[in-house]
Formats: sequence, structure tokens, C-alpha cells
Amino acid sequence: MYGRYTQDLGTFAKDEAARLRLQEGDTPQPRHPSELLEYTQGRCGLCRVCALQCQRFLISKVGEDWVFLILLGLVMALVSWAMDFAIATCLQAQKWMYGGLDTNVLLQYMAWVTYPTVLITFSAGFTQILAPQAVGSGIPEMKTILRGVVLKEYLTLKTFVAKVIGLTCALGSGMPLGKEGPFVHIASMCAALLSRFLSLFGGFYENEARNIEMLAAACAVGVGCCFAAPIGGVLFSIEVTSTFFAVRNYWRGFFAATFSAFIFRVLAVWNKDEETITALFKTRFRLDFPFDLQELPAFAVIGIASGFGGALFVYLNRKIVQFMRRQKAINRFLMKKRLLFPALVTLIISTLTFPPGFGQFMAGQLTQKDTLVTLFDNQTWAKQGINDEFEYLGILEAWLHPRSNVFVTLVVFILMKFWMSALATTIPVPCGAFMPVFVIGAAFGRLVGESMAAWFPDGIHTDSNIYRIVPGGYAVVGAAALSGAVTHTVSTAVIVFELTGQISHILPVMIAVILANAVAQSLQPSLYDSIIRIKKLPYLPELGWGHHEKYNVRVEDIMVRDIHYVTLNCKYRDLQQVLHSTKMKNLPLVESAESMILLGSIERAQVGALLNTQLSPQRRLLALRQKVMPEDGHRLSDSSIRFQISTETSSGTPARAALRKPLKPALKRVPSSPADSPPAGSTDHTGIALKSLFCANAATEPTEVRACVRRKGGPLLALVGRLYPLACPMAPPQILEWEEQQLDQLVDFSSAKIDPAPFQLVEHTSLHKTHTIFSLLGLDHAFVTSIGRLVGMVSLKELRKAIEGSLTGKGVKVRPPLASFRDSTASTSEADTTALHQLWDRHQHHHMPREAGPGGDEDDDTPK
Amino acid sequence: MYGRYTQDLGTFAKDEAARLRLQEGDTPQPRHPSELLEYTQGRCGLCRVCALQCQRFLISKVGEDWVFLILLGLVMALVSWAMDFAIATCLQAQKWMYGGLDTNVLLQYMAWVTYPTVLITFSAGFTQILAPQAVGSGIPEMKTILRGVVLKEYLTLKTFVAKVIGLTCALGSGMPLGKEGPFVHIASMCAALLSRFLSLFGGFYENEARNIEMLAAACAVGVGCCFAAPIGGVLFSIEVTSTFFAVRNYWRGFFAATFSAFIFRVLAVWNKDEETITALFKTRFRLDFPFDLQELPAFAVIGIASGFGGALFVYLNRKIVQFMRRQKAINRFLMKKRLLFPALVTLIISTLTFPPGFGQFMAGQLTQKDTLVTLFDNQTWAKQGINDEFEYLGILEAWLHPRSNVFVTLVVFILMKFWMSALATTIPVPCGAFMPVFVIGAAFGRLVGESMAAWFPDGIHTDSNIYRIVPGGYAVVGAAALSGAVTHTVSTAVIVFELTGQISHILPVMIAVILANAVAQSLQPSLYDSIIRIKKLPYLPELGWGHHEKYNVRVEDIMVRDIHYVTLNCKYRDLQQVLHSTKMKNLPLVESAESMILLGSIERAQVGALLNTQLSPQRRLLALRQKVMPEDGHRLSDSSIRFQISTETSSGTPARAALRKPLKPALKRVPSSPADSPPAGSTDHTGIALKSLFCANAATEPTEVRACVRRKGGPLLALVGRLYPLACPMAPPQILEWEEQQLDQLVDFSSAKIDPAPFQLVEHTSLHKTHTIFSLLGLDHAFVTSIGRLVGMVSLKELRKAIEGSLTGKGVKVRPPLASFRDSTASTSEADTTALHQLWDRHQHHHMPREAGPGGDEDDDTPK
Repeated sequence: MYGRYTQDLGTFAKDEAARLRLQEGDTPQPRHPSELLEYTQGRCGLCRVCALQCQRFLISKVGEDWVFLILLGLVMALVSWAMDFAIATCLQAQKWMYGGLDTNVLLQYMAWVTYPTVLITFSAGFTQILAPQAVGSGIPEMKTILRGVVLKEYLTLKTFVAKVIGLTCALGSGMPLGKEGPFVHIASMCAALLSRFLSLFGGFYENEARNIEMLAAACAVGVGCCFAAPIGGVLFSIEVTSTFFAVRNYWRGFFAATFSAFIFRVLAVWNKDEETITALFKTRFRLDFPFDLQELPAFAVIGIASGFGGALFVYLNRKIVQFMRRQKAINRFLMKKRLLFPALVTLIISTLTFPPGFGQFMAGQLTQKDTLVTLFDNQTWAKQGINDEFEYLGILEAWLHPRSNVFVTLVVFILMKFWMSALATTIPVPCGAFMPVFVIGAAFGRLVGESMAAWFPDGIHTDSNIYRIVPGGYAVVGAAALSGAVTHTVSTAVIVFELTGQISHILPVMIAVILANAVAQSLQPSLYDSIIRIKKLPYLPELGWGHHEKYNVRVEDIMVRDIHYVTLNCKYRDLQQVLHSTKMKNLPLVESAESMILLGSIERAQVGALLNTQLSPQRRLLALRQKVMPEDGHRLSDSSIRFQISTETSSGTPARAALRKPLKPALKRVPSSPADSPPAGSTDHTGIALKSLFCANAATEPTEVRACVRRKGGPLLALVGRLYPLACPMAPPQILEWEEQQLDQLVDFSSAKIDPAPFQLVEHTSLHKTHTIFSLLGLDHAFVTSIGRLVGMVSLKELRKAIEGSLTGKGVKVRPPLASFRDSTASTSEADTTALHQLWDRHQHHHMPREAGPGGDEDDDTPK
Repeated sequence: MYGRYTQDLGTFAKDEAARLRLQEGDTPQPRHPSELLEYTQGRCGLCRVCALQCQRFLISKVGEDWVFLILLGLVMALVSWAMDFAIATCLQAQKWMYGGLDTNVLLQYMAWVTYPTVLITFSAGFTQILAPQAVGSGIPEMKTILRGVVLKEYLTLKTFVAKVIGLTCALGSGMPLGKEGPFVHIASMCAALLSRFLSLFGGFYENEARNIEMLAAACAVGVGCCFAAPIGGVLFSIEVTSTFFAVRNYWRGFFAATFSAFIFRVLAVWNKDEETITALFKTRFRLDFPFDLQELPAFAVIGIASGFGGALFVYLNRKIVQFMRRQKAINRFLMKKRLLFPALVTLIISTLTFPPGFGQFMAGQLTQKDTLVTLFDNQTWAKQGINDEFEYLGILEAWLHPRSNVFVTLVVFILMKFWMSALATTIPVPCGAFMPVFVIGAAFGRLVGESMAAWFPDGIHTDSNIYRIVPGGYAVVGAAALSGAVTHTVSTAVIVFELTGQISHILPVMIAVILANAVAQSLQPSLYDSIIRIKKLPYLPELGWGHHEKYNVRVEDIMVRDIHYVTLNCKYRDLQQVLHSTKMKNLPLVESAESMILLGSIERAQVGALLNTQLSPQRRLLALRQKVMPEDGHRLSDSSIRFQISTETSSGTPARAALRKPLKPALKRVPSSPADSPPAGSTDHTGIALKSLFCANAATEPTEVRACVRRKGGPLLALVGRLYPLACPMAPPQILEWEEQQLDQLVDFSSAKIDPAPFQLVEHTSLHKTHTIFSLLGLDHAFVTSIGRLVGMVSLKELRKAIEGSLTGKGVKVRPPLASFRDSTASTSEADTTALHQLWDRHQHHHMPREAGPGGDEDDDTPK
């Protein structure tokens, strides 16, 4: 990413904008008043003029950020509202079916179970067929994409459609699934699609950096319009997706999320669901005395318990996934019938929640939304039997069981929902885990609150006024704490304030969330990081809290030392050798093998192109022509040949063409082994892959495949010889001979594109600093140099291994046993001095009379 | 910053912690229960054991982040509470004095005016004498410090004391001054002092990166405990002080700010000020229908107007400062009587607010806190004359004037307070502008709200229920919008929610704040950036909102091309030359003047040390001894001399010593000209400064000063010769000769500390990318290379100039007229190819028979 000067499309955007403004300027502006006057007779005409003006104005503004953000917010609000509407309708239908069949319990059960099973199965099947990338939360993928890794297939229209429809069905089934994560993904896809759509009006949206910024804003929009929580949305998306956040881009998120949340709630008002814009789960706790100081230990207990619970949830979720993968017998059976697993899980869960069955002990008939509304309720349930203060019970009734008490119901609910949610979120449908966890947390908080209310019936405060304990407040605290623990975020606190519309419990919520985070972060990774690990996405893990020992690993401990490089004075044969022996995407270019001074890095594809050009049939034909008719008047000088070749190369290599279309989707799956996905075929595939690599820009000349294939030996050559009949007058042995000659020439790098400033680290750079630099600049590799000399390379892979501490494989050793006892100052300066000494000595050699045998780099100096 | 591998003290911290844990382990842990049983007879003994255990445990935990953060939070909460108490007492005293003298208006006036004048004058004088750095807000300085620039004097105990006492007096005077900015500064100083104090227990706190992280957390604590707003505090501090924020450090801010806010509010409960923990300015707006959808345009109007108002405030503030500086006559007079300006301003402002005088039209008798409480009031003032719903009036009465109406009072208040606040914040006392602006915004919002209430007496909503308009809500919106506009932050929205304890107005607040920010950011810099510019602090300004044209300036347009460098094969004379001709802190080290391959960078101090070592009297004496007694048995070989020198150099250079003490305060003032503050004297000062630079580690040998002085010519030499009598047997002419000889030797870099990976940019790196990299990595300079060859340098200064667009001075040209029309692709590849061609050709030369004259770098190869 760094140092490779991608062409700044801002220029183009600006020119385009200027052009459009000029066009706008061409329309006779001074005449507007008279024009308007002419049209005032017909209102329709006036409207038309206005519309025209608006249109022109809008098109000229299309390149501006705020237009994009408003459009994004608007679209996402509409999507969110429509989906909510569809989900509510689905749930209503189930309730209606279940209610209509109340004469026969068996029929009721069938209806209760079949409906979600069908929906989930449809959702799983639909997603599987249309776009398997739509499965799951999407936040892990967004985190990876915002890290700079391109997962193109994740941001396409197909995935968008699959995710929206799949999610609607999944949530409509009433399973304990969430919509937050998928919404982040949906909003990001929406942003990507919108930017592609808007780029039809001009090239404003082709700047990669800007697209990343917009995706970050889109994540905020996703959370914002899902919960109508703009501030919490921005903060949550930052915490969940970013490592380093540019404060410069802060406003984008706020702007878009606020607009989106506004439209989302306005739609609810227009639909007469609400009288005015209010919170989604509005609470009505008393304002004057929200909680007593002495209740704080109870809130702290909620926080700590939530921390353990959150870690357990992540652990359970991961174990279920791993179990399903490991059990080959089950796995094979399920893989054959891909839809069986979702159906089975749905069947189990819906059977258990069947209200006349076990569901009566766990408020099974309530939807997720109703559950939350009841849990955040203002009243104290424990006294419900005794007091008759309540005028209405309504949906609260679900929590009351005639032969049991509310504590039992809550405990059963928490326990059952816990494993159900952990299980349900592994179903291959688009779904998140935030909302189920949030509900469990609320139930746990309510449980603690009810216990406190039962313990202190008249409140703890012993002054004149009696302030009873508000269990609803505990529910809010619990919800924030558990969801914070699972996602490792603090901003769930802000989300609950915005969700409930009350901020009076700020201190208990903050204390509980921080404690929950502290506990959970020391036990398990966050749910999203856990999924990243399971899916093996190319992501750099975070350094742990104050793990000082990490600081003492240095780049020299983790770097790969035996790297392949290209020297400035190498021969084409060496290029071939390097291409054959390494899969690295970027090859370092050094001055010479002796000096090893790093001059830049060259892309693998460029090296391939160089080699290909050198052995191209055009050059062969030219050589032949020169040999055959040296007396020809049209003798082509060597330089003109080179010129011809270089222009050809610079215009047609596939690498370049790919570079120019940053967001163009390509049907490419995520590489299962991260960080080393070869850009265009690897050497493991035989000649064919190599051909596509080397011969892409001269596919009309089939014989040239030999240049690539000849290394593979005779049989393949013969095969090729049969496949491609001879098209040039050279016989195969001649060609081989000519190619051998060509390979012995020195490489002409003048036509290759070289990145003159690849990122460089020093041997002694600490792991901590390396991690910071990699995260900050979104690097995927860096060369390690010592006073200009290349000594090694570190890629994302090595870094990840070093951080995760699981080090196996080639040449990577981490943390030598004595690392922590190493006297860093001494070794640092010593090694430095040594390296410098060498360089200095090398230079001294030049000034001394040459007595000893020729030094390393003197080979270059001897004239040939 | 980057690439210079500062010794990681994490290692040391870890070892220390391990040691302490081992010590703890030494105490017989299994015996604890019996020990405890033994002591249970005497409770005192038990306590002692517990205390001992606690003490041991705490000491072993001292190195952990959370202990530091808790201590910081605790200390800051206590400071905040104590200051609030003192300020309240001061204000109470003024009120008491004013109230007690109600028999005589003149006496009343005298008391009303004298009291604040004395306090402000004392504050200004005290601050001026003790630590002038304590003046003003402190946020601009913190922004600069967090950017990586060391402003040491700003974080000392003296400044802390000056700021705390100065601020208490300033706020106790009742002037329209704020405490938020100073609190950020106080918290940061507190963190710096605390880390220095805790480092007495071990070396945990000497890691520079960690200190920066802790300072960022401290900023959050400052805001958090000032407003009891942990979330808003964290966000505000991020927005105001950071450019790129590491999400990794998020929890630090939240943890410390929450703890601090908690303690701060608990202290209020213990002091019986409050019954329980609630918001600082609690509002009681109705929950069920906070506002109507149709009121949103009014909120938007508040936002836009606040945007203009905020920009005007920043403009006014800056103009006042500039006016005061420019008017030399006034300036000279005021400089002489430094305390006259504060006294004068206080006199004017307090005269105008005198309640029986003009103050009666602007609620002059209310303190800032009372003003806010009344403005956020639940009731509608406009109807106050008509309705008699009100039971109490209390402090609200101040807003009602018998012969005027509340609109007039509000308008007068806003207008007067506006210029008063802008003027008052220029007084040289510790003070911020947030709170005054916040109050003005609240008044403006209240004005709009009251107007709306008068316009729609029964609310806008036309359904069955009548929901009246709540002007208090408008006041909240106005406060957030204006303070957001002045500071360019969105998080003021969160701060008002936490301050008022209600979040029901979230959408209006967000809309208004975003609109205000949009307007203000397009008109003026933020108040803090404005102060940074006025004070000329070395800070990198932000790139504007979507200023695409900035993207098209490249490093080659702004870099300094004629830089001075050190070559690997240079002579000491060249070093001297370079030191004489440039003030750069870091000199590039290149391979040779012809190849210009950048090998690293060397600090100026190191170059000085090298030169000094070469010309040191020790070496001269050695040389003399060798010359005098060549037959001596103790003949010292050249290598042993060098060895001796190099050990000496590496242990005693001032640069190294300074590096090891990152937070050690030094009595150094802020450099008035930014970015090029010389590290240890500049060449402008004659021999003496040079002496201190070069001869620091051999001060016992006075004659060596000649080595530095001889360039200055004869008179100085003669002077020195008189000052320092001869201490070595060489005569001055001999010394000169010897030194000339020495200067002609090649430099031995083996003892110098070289940064082997200084940050490198490419010529074509865009300004946008350069800015990002500089901000991210906290660089203050970067070398520009072209395929390993040094071609220029960019420092913070050039970058700042390029961004601000005001380009004057040596060799810096920005944005050539045709920059925007330049075809970037073509020129890029062309220039690249050219550069590479040269390098390639250079190498080709070696392989060709030498026909032409010797090439550039062949000078090195010819044996001497």
C-alpha cells in the first residue's frame, strides 16, 4: 500500500467537477428570474424548471462526499425500515397461524415448528446458491477489508441481494439471531454499489483511499440505522472494524449515521407506528433518583459475570463450529445435505420454545423485540403476585408462570437462550450474534435486579424518601455488559443509551461494561476475532493488553532471511530462476548480490512480463530477420527494437490493467491460506498457468508458450509442439538455442515498473513497533534492511505468527529463549557497528592498494 | 520518531515486575491463613497484616496500566472537586459581599468590581511569575505534544501548581472563562508527574510511546472529570487532540475517565450536595414526546446560526489577540505593566455586568453555573407574565426584567457575552473558552425556543394530546451546536447528554451539531487550531474537507532540493563544512556524492561529536607522544587509539544522555520559530555555543576549544589563547597544523550512531499521502529518494507551508501553475524510467570497455 504512488484520481474528480460546473455556468444564469416569471402562470412549468435546476445542481454535486453520504444514509434507512417491516410481518404471520390453531396442540406445534424451519432452510439455500459470502455476520470480513485486504466478492450486488433476503427470512423465523453484523455488511455493500453507480456520472469514486473511508462510514451507518443509534453506531463500528482511526473521517460516520437514523425513525412516524421520533426501546425510569450509590456493587457483579459469560459464549460458539468441522462422519453427511443442519437446529430450538411445551418456562412466545421491551420494563416483577399496583399486564404475562416464579423463568430463559444463541449463530444464514447476546444480557441483568428488589423491598436508601430499586435499570446494564463482553467494545454503553432513550444509568453501565471488557478480553478474543481465526482471514491480530514481553521480540527474530531477490545486473536466466523458486508477490531489487543495497521492489507480474518480452516471438522473428538479411536497408537498430518492446509492455500487461480498476469485482474466492495468495497463478500449476502468466499479452502467438514451458523438460515441450503447430520459421532446437542465448543477456529494467520506496524496517525494530507500522499503513510485507542492505523480509504472515506465538514452518524463529534477558543496548550498538564497519571497510578497500584478492563488489568494476 | 529504534524499556519493566513478583513469592504464602488466625485476637494486628499485604501487592502492580489509570482518575477527581469547591466558595464570597453592602450602590459597585479584578490580577501575576506556560487553554499545546513534539516545560510541577491556583482564582472571579481546556492540561500534567513519581518504584514509565498513550488517556480524564462526562470526555479529547487514534488505547481513556467521573460525583454525594449520582446539570424534560418532527427546521436553524456564530467567535478571538500584538504603542505600555491588561478587561466586564447597572438587562448577577441551570430549565419563560403555573421563581427571576421582556434580556445577554467571552479568553490567565461558548449557545437556543413557544403557544402537534414546546430542549441543542462549532467537534453532543442526564433530544442535537460543524469548518479553523497558529506551535494542520486539489501537489513540488549531506567517504573537513552550512537536526548519510545512495541519517550532535573526537586534545597528545618518542616500548597502535576514542564517545555524548531521559524537564522555552529548533545551540552563536556543542564531554581540557573556534578566524583564536592558557606542549601554530592534518583524514563512522532507516518518500508521493504518513508516524522530516538516491528532503515546515498555501522562502515552490493539468501517469513513468535508466547506465558502464572519460563513481574505484 505504502509508497506505491497510485495515481491520484482526485485530480480527475476535480477536473470533472470543474467541467460540470462550467457546463452549469453555460446555462444562462442571469435570465433565471425572467424565465421563472414566464412560467409562473403554469405551476407545472415552474416545477419543471425547478426540477431541471435541481437535477443540474445535483449532478454537479455528485462528486461531493456529503451527497454520497446522504444517499447512503437514505438508502440504508429505507432498506432497514423495509426489512423491519417484512420481519415484523413474518413474525405476525407465525403468531397468527399459531393463534388460529389453538384448538389442536399438535397442529399448533406443527405450525410453530414448520414455519421457522421452512424460512431458515430457504434462507440457507438461497444464500448458498446466490452468494455463499453472505453467510454470517460480515463484521469480520469488513474488518479485514478495512485493514486493506481486498475480498472483492464480499461487496457485490449478488451478495447484497442474498444478504438482504436471507437475513429477512432468517430473522422472520423468530430464531435467536441478530441483525447488527449483517447490517454493517449490507451498508458496506450498499456503499460499494452506490459508489460504482455514481461513478457512471464521473470518475469521482475510483480513488481507493476514499473508498476505504466511505466503507468505514458505511459501517457506522449500518449500526446506526439498525438501532437508530447514530453515536453508538459510529463508535461501535470504529471499535469493531478499525485499528487506527483517522479523526479526519469522524464526521463522515456521524453525518451519514445521523441522517440514516433520522430517516429510519421518520419512516416509523409516517407509518404511524410512533407519534414522534423517540428511542427504539424507550424506557421510562424515574429521573430524579435512578439508582443508589450502594447498588453499585450489584452492577459491578453484573459486569464481572457478564465478562465471564461473554468469554464463555465466544468459546462455545467456536467449539460448536470446530466440532462440526472435525466430526468427519457428521460433516460428510451434512455436507451432502447442506440444508439439513440449519433445518435440524431450527427444529430443536423451535421445539424447545414451543409455548405450550417447554416454552412456557422461558417466555417462548415472545419475539426478540417483545422480550427486550418486557425486560426493560419499569415495573418490579417479583412483587407482581403481592402488589396489585399494575393496571395492565399485556405481554409481560409471558414471564409469569402460574406454578413457578419469575426467577425460575428468567434462569431457564438465560440458560436455554445461551446455548441456543451460540448454536443458532453457527447456522449458515446471514445472521449476527449481537442482538441475541444483548437479550440474554438484559435477562441476566433483570434477574439480578429482581433479586435485589426482593432483597431490599423498600430500596436501600434510608432517607425520608423511599426509592425502590428499578430492575429495568439492571436489565439495561446487563444488556450493555454482556454484548460489550462478547464484542470487546465499550460503545455498547452508548448504544443502550440511544436504544432506551435514557442516560441516567450512565455510571453503572460504564462500570459494568468496562469490567465485562476487562474480564472477557483477558479470557477470549472477541467474537469477531474468533470468527476471523476460524475463517483464517488475512488479518493482523491485536497485541494484547500490556503484554510487555511482545515488545522484546525484534524483527530479526521473526524475519525470513533466505529471500529471493533480483539484482540490477542480473541475467534473464536469474529472473527465471527467481520466479521458479519463490511465490512472493513483490521481489526486492538490489544493486548487486554482493552489496545487497535495496533499490526498490518489483512486482512478480512485472518480472514475468520482462521475461516474456525477452523471449517473445516478435523479438525472435526480428532476430531471425536480422540474421537472414543483414544486408537489408531497413536494418533495425537494437535500440528501436527495445523501444518497440517497452511501449508494448507498458500498455498491455495484465498487472497494470488490474491496477486501474480497484473495485472491479472478479470472481475470486477468498484464499484459504492467507497472505500469500499468488496474484496470477503459481508455479505449482504446470505450463498452462505459466503460460497465462507470461504470455497474456501475446496470446495470438502460440509458439511462445515454449519459452515458459521449456524449463519443464521434454515431454511437455513435445506436447506443446503438437498442440501448437509451428508458426515461425525457426525449428524447435533453434528456438531453444536462441532462447538460451537470450536468457544469458543482461536484464533491461528500463521498461519495468519499479516501486522505488518499498517499506523498510531495521533488524532491531521491535515487534510492537512493527505491528503499529503494519496496522497504520496497511502493509502486507516490509523489507528488512541494514544500512541500505537487504537482510530479510517480514510479511503479515510472520507477524501474525509471532503475535499468536504459534510458530512453525520455514525459517521463522521467534523469541529466542534468552530474548528477555538480552541486553538490548549492547547488542544493538554492537550489531550496528559491525554492519557499518563492513560497509566502511568495503569503501576503505577502494582507497587502499589492492593487495588482497578481489573483494565482493569488485567483480562489477572489472571491465569485461 | 519512526525507525529510530529507541530502547524498549518494556523489557526492563517486565524484568522489574518479575523481580517484584519473585520477591512477593518469597514471602511464605501458604502460611497466610495461620498468620491471619494468630492475629485475629487483635484487630489492629490483622489490619497491619492486611495493609502489609496490600502494600506489597500494590507495589508489585505499580507497573500495570490500570493502576496508573486509577491513580490518575482518583487524583484528578480530587483536584476537580477541590477546585470546584474553592471556586464555589469564591463566588459565594462575592455574592455575600455584594449582598451585604446593599445599602450603598457605590460600595456595592466597588465590591462587585474590585473582587474579580483582584483575583484575575493575582492569577495573571502568579502564573506569570511561576510558569508562563500555564496561561491559556492548554489544549493546543497538548495537541502538539501528542503529535510527538516535545514541549517539556508544559508538563512540570511548577506549571501544574500555577495552572491549578491560577485557574481557581480566574474562575472564582466570575469572569466568563471556562475550565475544560485547562483541565485537559492539568490532567496531562498530573499524568506526567504521576508517571515520574511511580517510576521511583521501577522503570516502568520510561517508555516514550507508553507515555504518549497515557497522556492521551489523561486528556480524556480531564474532560471527563470536569463535566462528569466520561464518554463525551473520551470522544472530545480524541477529536480535539488526535489525528489518528489507536483503537487499542480506547479502553484506557474510558477506564480512567469513568473512574474519575465516578469519584468526582461520589465526592459530591458524600459532601451532601446530591442525594445520589446524577448529571451535573440535570434536566427534567418530558420523556414521552420530547419534540415534534415539525420542530426540526428550528433546530436546523440553530445549528446553522451556531456555525456562523462559532466561526465569528474564533475570528473575533484571533483578531483581538492580533490587534493587541500589532498595536505597538499599546503593546509596549501593556508589556511594561503586564498586569494592567487583565485588570482593565476585568474592570470593563464586571462593570457591565453590575446587576443594579447594565447587568440587570443581562442576568448579570447569575454565575455561569446558575445561568446554565436556568437556561436548561423546564419551563417556558415567555408566558411567565401571563400564566401563573409557576410555584417558585428562584434564580429564574434574574432573567425577568420588570420593564422589559425575556427576549430582550436574552438578546442583550447573547450579544454582550459574545464579545466579553472572546475578550476574556485572551487574558493571560489559565482559562478555556468552552464553557462561556456553551453558555452563549444555550442562551441562543433558549431564545429560539422561547420564540417558538410564543409562536406556537399550544405546540405544533395537532393530535388529541397537546404537547407544548420545551424551550429548555432548544437551549440544550444550542449549547451543543455553538460549542461544537467553536471547537470543531461532534462529541459536544455526547457531552450535553451526559451533562443534562437526558438523551431524548438526540436527533435535534446531532443535526444541529453536524450543521454547525459543517458551516464553521468551512469558514474558520477551530479555536484550538487558531491558537496553534497564533502561538506558532510546531503542528501539522489538517487537510480540509475534500479539498481535492491538495491531492495533486507532490513531494517534488514542496521538497527542499539543496540539502546538505554526509558521505561515507568524506573527510572531517567536510563534516565541519556541513555543520557550518546547515541547521538540520538530522543529516543524511549517503554512499558517495556521485551515487547519492541514502544509507541512513546521522544526528547533528553525533557529527559534532565525531569532529570533536578527531580534534580532541587526547588524540593530539597521543600524536605528540608518538612523534616525540617513536622508540618508546609502549607504542600505541592506531587501532587501539581508535578503540579508546570510540568507547569514550559512546558513553558520554550529550545526545545519548538526553535520549535516556524522555520526560526529564529542562528549562527550555518553546521555540518561537517552529520545526527547526536546534537541539543544542546553532551556528549563529559564535564560538561559545559551538564549544558547548562540541566540547561537552571534555570540558576539562580548555585548549580544545580551538578546534571549534579556528574557523572563526584569528581574533577569536587570540582571545581564546588568552582565556585558556596553554595546557599541552604544542604551540598554537603547531596545533593548527596538526588540526589541518587531522581534518584531511577520512571520517571513521564506526563509533557514530546512525539511524539506518530514516523515513523515505518518493518524489511522486502526493501531499495527501505525505500528510497521512507524517501524521500517522509523527515524523518531523523525511528524505526523498529516487531508487535509493537522495534527491531532497521534506520537513514539517515545508508540509505546513504547502498545506497552508502561504509559500515564501528558500527554494520551496508549491503547486506549479499547471499542476492540475499535468498528466500524472505519463510524467510518473517517464521520470521513473529516466532515473532507473541512469542507474542502469551507470552499471552498464562497468561492463563496457571504458572509452569515455571516467564516470562519476569511478573515482572511488581508482586505487589511491
